[in-house]
Amino acid sequence: MSEVLDRIWQFQQVSRVELVEHTGLTSGTITNLTAELIELNIIREFEAVSGSVGRRRVMLGLDTNHYRIIGLDIGRATIEIVVVDLNGTIIRTIERDMSDRQGPEQYFEVIGPLLSETKQEIEQAGYVILGLGASVPGPMDYNTGNLLDPPNFPGWSGFPLKRTLEERFGMVTLIEDDARTSAMAERWYGLGRNVQDLVFITMGIGIGGGVVSGGKVSRGTNGLCGQVGHMTIVLDGKICDCGNRGCWETVGSIPGILGRWPGGNSMEQLKEAIKQGDSEALRCMEDTLTYLETALINVYNLYDPEMVVLGGRLYPYLADYLLPVRSHLRSRLYAFAKDRLRIEPSTFGTSQSAVGAAALLFGFLLSEPVRLLSLAEGS
Amino acid sequence: MSEVLDRIWQFQQVSRVELVEHTGLTSGTITNLTAELIELNIIREFEAVSGSVGRRRVMLGLDTNHYRIIGLDIGRATIEIVVVDLNGTIIRTIERDMSDRQGPEQYFEVIGPLLSETKQEIEQAGYVILGLGASVPGPMDYNTGNLLDPPNFPGWSGFPLKRTLEERFGMVTLIEDDARTSAMAERWYGLGRNVQDLVFITMGIGIGGGVVSGGKVSRGTNGLCGQVGHMTIVLDGKICDCGNRGCWETVGSIPGILGRWPGGNSMEQLKEAIKQGDSEALRCMEDTLTYLETALINVYNLYDPEMVVLGGRLYPYLADYLLPVRSHLRSRLYAFAKDRLRIEPSTFGTSQSAVGAAALLFGFLLSEPVRLLSLAEGS
Repeated sequence: MSEVLDRIWQFQQVSRVELVEHTGLTSGTITNLTAELIELNIIREFEAVSGSVGRRRVMLGLDTNHYRIIGLDIGRATIEIVVVDLNGTIIRTIERDMSDRQGPEQYFEVIGPLLSETKQEIEQAGYVILGLGASVPGPMDYNTGNLLDPPNFPGWSGFPLKRTLEERFGMVTLIEDDARTSAMAERWYGLGRNVQDLVFITMGIGIGGGVVSGGKVSRGTNGLCGQVGHMTIVLDGKICDCGNRGCWETVGSIPGILGRWPGGNSMEQLKEAIKQGDSEALRCMEDTLTYLETALINVYNLYDPEMVVLGGRLYPYLADYLLPVRSHLRSRLYAFAKDRLRIEPSTFGTSQSAVGAAALLFGFLLSEPVRLLSLAEGS
Repeated sequence: MSEVLDRIWQFQQVSRVELVEHTGLTSGTITNLTAELIELNIIREFEAVSGSVGRRRVMLGLDTNHYRIIGLDIGRATIEIVVVDLNGTIIRTIERDMSDRQGPEQYFEVIGPLLSETKQEIEQAGYVILGLGASVPGPMDYNTGNLLDPPNFPGWSGFPLKRTLEERFGMVTLIEDDARTSAMAERWYGLGRNVQDLVFITMGIGIGGGVVSGGKVSRGTNGLCGQVGHMTIVLDGKICDCGNRGCWETVGSIPGILGRWPGGNSMEQLKEAIKQGDSEALRCMEDTLTYLETALINVYNLYDPEMVVLGGRLYPYLADYLLPVRSHLRSRLYAFAKDRLRIEPSTFGTSQSAVGAAALLFGFLLSEPVRLLSLAEGS
């Protein structure tokens, strides 16, 4: 069933005949499995008019009218809650500034009422909630669902996030590092439908990375795979919260950039100063791009991805420079690889990691639909 | 059959009862599959005396008396041919200095006669050759089996190595990048039997990396995954043959190190000068270790492996410094990850990539035993 569902997700619109071709299953089996999936309200039939003769065909696609998933992004300066349907379309988004709050208790004063309301609204409208995905800005212990020791995020060390969310809101709950959820959003709902190897880089107050390899998210031995923000860019540079020196994050994140520019304290101000031709601002941006290029070269040489996706709150300030960055990269990569260079902006902008948090549940649905539904309905 | 064979490889000595437990197959199926594998001379029975009561049990293990694999390492300064049995034990090794030769034609003047003799000897002794694995110092095109454009290896660009070897020697032939074969040697015959995520780093005239993730070798989109030698260590450093600047290889390989030391032109001389307390030599080694540490921190932060294995011709000169390198690394990695740091020397020393070339065929045998045997006997 998972295999059939996977194809329906991948092609978005597919006929039973095409499913037979792609899966190698018999048409009887396909008929049975799709009937079950329709019965479960996961997929639905619709009519498509195809070709010049206008022949009508019955196609299958995900049913977006029955289930909802909630995604929660817990960030260093904001929280965001999104509600998505099975196609990853954002039905609702709520964002709150958290820059004056610190630690789980203060965060939950905001998160608590918002999540309760959101849950109630969805249920009152007659939808079934598959679950809650949450993303956090740092590494975690996958066995316990506790946060480990996220840098620049005081008060959260060791916090039992998964258990707390489960107990307070009674939904199936999955949690993950925000760079990895961002990669998931791309994999399940964005550019990753047809890409098996991609690296998502999220740049904001910190810099994180999520690696999808052979269609699967890579975690590594300690859940630290893809910590691109902590690769050394400046040998013997500034001490980073992670313990290393000269990490990309220390010079390439928003605080890292503004720390090298005495002329102001926001990216908007820096942008304005660059527009005015301020030489210090220009040099700060030039250095920022050099660090970005170096980091991207390392990402290409270490992971060799088909695509790199860039996102996070910093990205809009770098977007205009992507063309020269690409051409510099081309000149510094192996000749035979450089023509295949794909660097793309993230599909969901600032909602990327919240959508990706929801995508955690979608991934669960694709691999074990019946199990997730029974858990979701039991909760 | 592949699953059973995989367990026999992993445990080295295992009883049929244990195979039933580990695979979940019925004892009837295990009896049939092991009978087939014995019939094919891939495994054999032997008696083991176990426990204090001295009970005799029939165990199964790989049969090392019937098949041989040839591994060929084509290096920038040497070539090596090894003959191994199914356990990866080296039966024979031949090495030749190639520093005065350049390009495929001159190399094949040496390789040709040696491979022919080796093949003949093995066959005359009554063994069946499963095939020939070859490793090369640079990226290749996996579809064609041609080399791409290996840096520092003039004359080999585009060379059809796989086809040439197949046609000239008539054996099943697999080829791979030498860092990746080195990782394979560790995975199949060395420390990797029980480690799912490891990074092999080979340091010599160049620096390469081979990544095993979830038990499988990662290639990336262009076969460039794991090019750790080409991560940037010195921002705006020397131009590297790969097109990038300040790659680890430019400062951390043998030529990179000797290029920073005016006192001599071999690692032996450098070692001697360090012993004498020569301050320039000491500083050169200190910088080398700083680069190594930085590179290893990046490897940990990007791949998060369970184990890093170090090898190559440079390694013996760095081995004495591994203890302080480890402790520096510990201080620069995330607190919760640092206690799990495992850095080990390679199992096969300078024969690592040749043994790994042979291991390519062993991996093929484990996954498709019947197919490889029919190919090997048909050739």
